[in-house]
Amino acid sequence: MTDSSRSRRFGKAAEVLVRQDSPFNAGPPPEKAAASFLTPVDLFFVRNHGDVPSIDPRTFNLTIEGNVKRPFRLPLEEIQRLPRITVPATLQCAGNRRQELIATQPIPGELGWGTEAISTAEWSGVPLRDVLAVADPKPEGRHVELIGLDETERHGHTFAFGGSIPLDKAMRSEVLLAYEMNGQPLPPVHGAPLRAVVPGWIGARSVKWLTRINLREDPSDNYFQAKAYRLFPPQTGPDNVVWETGLMLGEFNVSSVISTPAPGDTLPPGETAVRGWAFAGERRVERVDVSIDGGRTWRTADLEPERSRWTWRRWVARTDLPAGSHELICRAWDSAAQTQPEDAAQVWNFKGYMNNAWHRVAVSVR
Amino acid sequence: MTDSSRSRRFGKAAEVLVRQDSPFNAGPPPEKAAASFLTPVDLFFVRNHGDVPSIDPRTFNLTIEGNVKRPFRLPLEEIQRLPRITVPATLQCAGNRRQELIATQPIPGELGWGTEAISTAEWSGVPLRDVLAVADPKPEGRHVELIGLDETERHGHTFAFGGSIPLDKAMRSEVLLAYEMNGQPLPPVHGAPLRAVVPGWIGARSVKWLTRINLREDPSDNYFQAKAYRLFPPQTGPDNVVWETGLMLGEFNVSSVISTPAPGDTLPPGETAVRGWAFAGERRVERVDVSIDGGRTWRTADLEPERSRWTWRRWVARTDLPAGSHELICRAWDSAAQTQPEDAAQVWNFKGYMNNAWHRVAVSVR
Repeated sequence: MTDSSRSRRFGKAAEVLVRQDSPFNAGPPPEKAAASFLTPVDLFFVRNHGDVPSIDPRTFNLTIEGNVKRPFRLPLEEIQRLPRITVPATLQCAGNRRQELIATQPIPGELGWGTEAISTAEWSGVPLRDVLAVADPKPEGRHVELIGLDETERHGHTFAFGGSIPLDKAMRSEVLLAYEMNGQPLPPVHGAPLRAVVPGWIGARSVKWLTRINLREDPSDNYFQAKAYRLFPPQTGPDNVVWETGLMLGEFNVSSVISTPAPGDTLPPGETAVRGWAFAGERRVERVDVSIDGGRTWRTADLEPERSRWTWRRWVARTDLPAGSHELICRAWDSAAQTQPEDAAQVWNFKGYMNNAWHRVAVSVR
Repeated sequence: MTDSSRSRRFGKAAEVLVRQDSPFNAGPPPEKAAASFLTPVDLFFVRNHGDVPSIDPRTFNLTIEGNVKRPFRLPLEEIQRLPRITVPATLQCAGNRRQELIATQPIPGELGWGTEAISTAEWSGVPLRDVLAVADPKPEGRHVELIGLDETERHGHTFAFGGSIPLDKAMRSEVLLAYEMNGQPLPPVHGAPLRAVVPGWIGARSVKWLTRINLREDPSDNYFQAKAYRLFPPQTGPDNVVWETGLMLGEFNVSSVISTPAPGDTLPPGETAVRGWAFAGERRVERVDVSIDGGRTWRTADLEPERSRWTWRRWVARTDLPAGSHELICRAWDSAAQTQPEDAAQVWNFKGYMNNAWHRVAVSVR
């Protein structure tokens, strides 16, 4: 793995920041990240744990089994004949903004994401709950395991990526089995022919190349649910970790990022439009504050109207910066009056997940 | 109003900290706050905005009206004949821990709560959704307004205390019309004969002496919903406030408090058990950290098992303190990997709501 990144032409249209070639991991450069409410498909971030599998849609099946009264198997064309809905949703990797954690203390072996592991799309497909209703979960079927067709490798074992969500989340109307993205067929790198979309939750639960849904009494025992994607306390590291004890990640916390100006930018004196996004997972984004004096005073940013319950809100704050060096800071507040912690060092964890500290961008004015 | 407090015998059994005599506002002293999972009724915090009304239960009625297809009125004895449930729930005032905000910048005209405006009880009564189902809300009935029988006075007007919750929260099984508390009839000071209990939300929505439920298109226009109990940005004060613009409070953020030792305690050298509570509103409490070195390093506290989805979790951390002055700090993490902000000055707001900064207790060891 590598912490370096570079710009590369990916897909037809756009430059992306590539964090890793194999498996492929990339995202939009910061200045393009929030340039549009919906992220163009060619710019949408990719966080893959294995190579993109080669799947023939004509023979593809989705199996629903485990603690259900009526297990069944559906070919893709039958899934696509079921009543469809479209849900705009922001997806984010639990490792987004890891780079800021690494800057306070190293995190070996994990991708050094900047702020680009987040994007927004309109997803179309079948509500997961419609499919579950047909299968009729037994009372023991309290967790919905989602398993892909890719091959990932961890600690000498090869297996398909998977994870699970509790049944009560799975039964909500926003959770989809998606086969379209921004009105186009889902591309292979984003999970074609079928992926889960679990709005408000870490991206790892929106399993790509989804082929099997298994209802279980307990959360999935897949590596990426049982061991990875857990939050450990700051005193835990590779030498003393007990993998089964960390906080099993699910819902997102509240976060915000300055997307322009970029770190290191030189700006002319006078008014600067500071722009970015804020996202609060299951909650709503209610306010974004911007400071140019280290958090001593704050101004309230203009938030774009909430366009959907499950998406980021972009914002702009106009500041007047004199010549010199400045640090721009933003923080968001969610609908529970919860704000972000001040200091990335205080949310450091050895796997580098869920950094939602104040976002800081150093710029010069001259 | 007064920011001072004193201990007073209240009810039959216990000493409470009284913050205000009229209207009566009081709570358990810190060392008793988390001494038991359920707070004894005599110690349960009281946050009243007017005098306790005198209500004859024989003539008391609950009215359900507004945007419903079948408005109706029910006497108390009929409410008590409906199927009943019991829900353990922690209630907390949005102004709890205001004293720590005041220590960073004054907040005139508001109660100077320490950490005592939080308590836990088992509430028995009728699910609000059962009553709403009979009334059959119209599609426009998106907010459930709850109005009491007390008389409050604000800015020269006298009116009953009220507020509202969205219909989707009101339809959840945990929201009650309660007439018992810890197995005893609800006492007048806690809202007899009938009160709302809205678990996970600010105490102000658990309206006491509840006599009217009114389904509305928009949130309540009662002063305590429309103007008070809003979170304003730090640059807003009494001179520039636009009351209708602040964040309308509802769900609680994540918070934790050290209940023993108390601030200023002198302890013997050696092992000290640091105890307290953590509460995360609609979310679960997942972890509590304790630091004795200003947040440089942390240890994980032992959390009591989650006893109910809607209650605090108490915790203990054993520390070994050498002679000298120390600051004990705690912070909690919720199920969305969200932790508390570090600094009370950073969450200061001119009404003094929703302080969930790290809790700090200064002690001496000798």
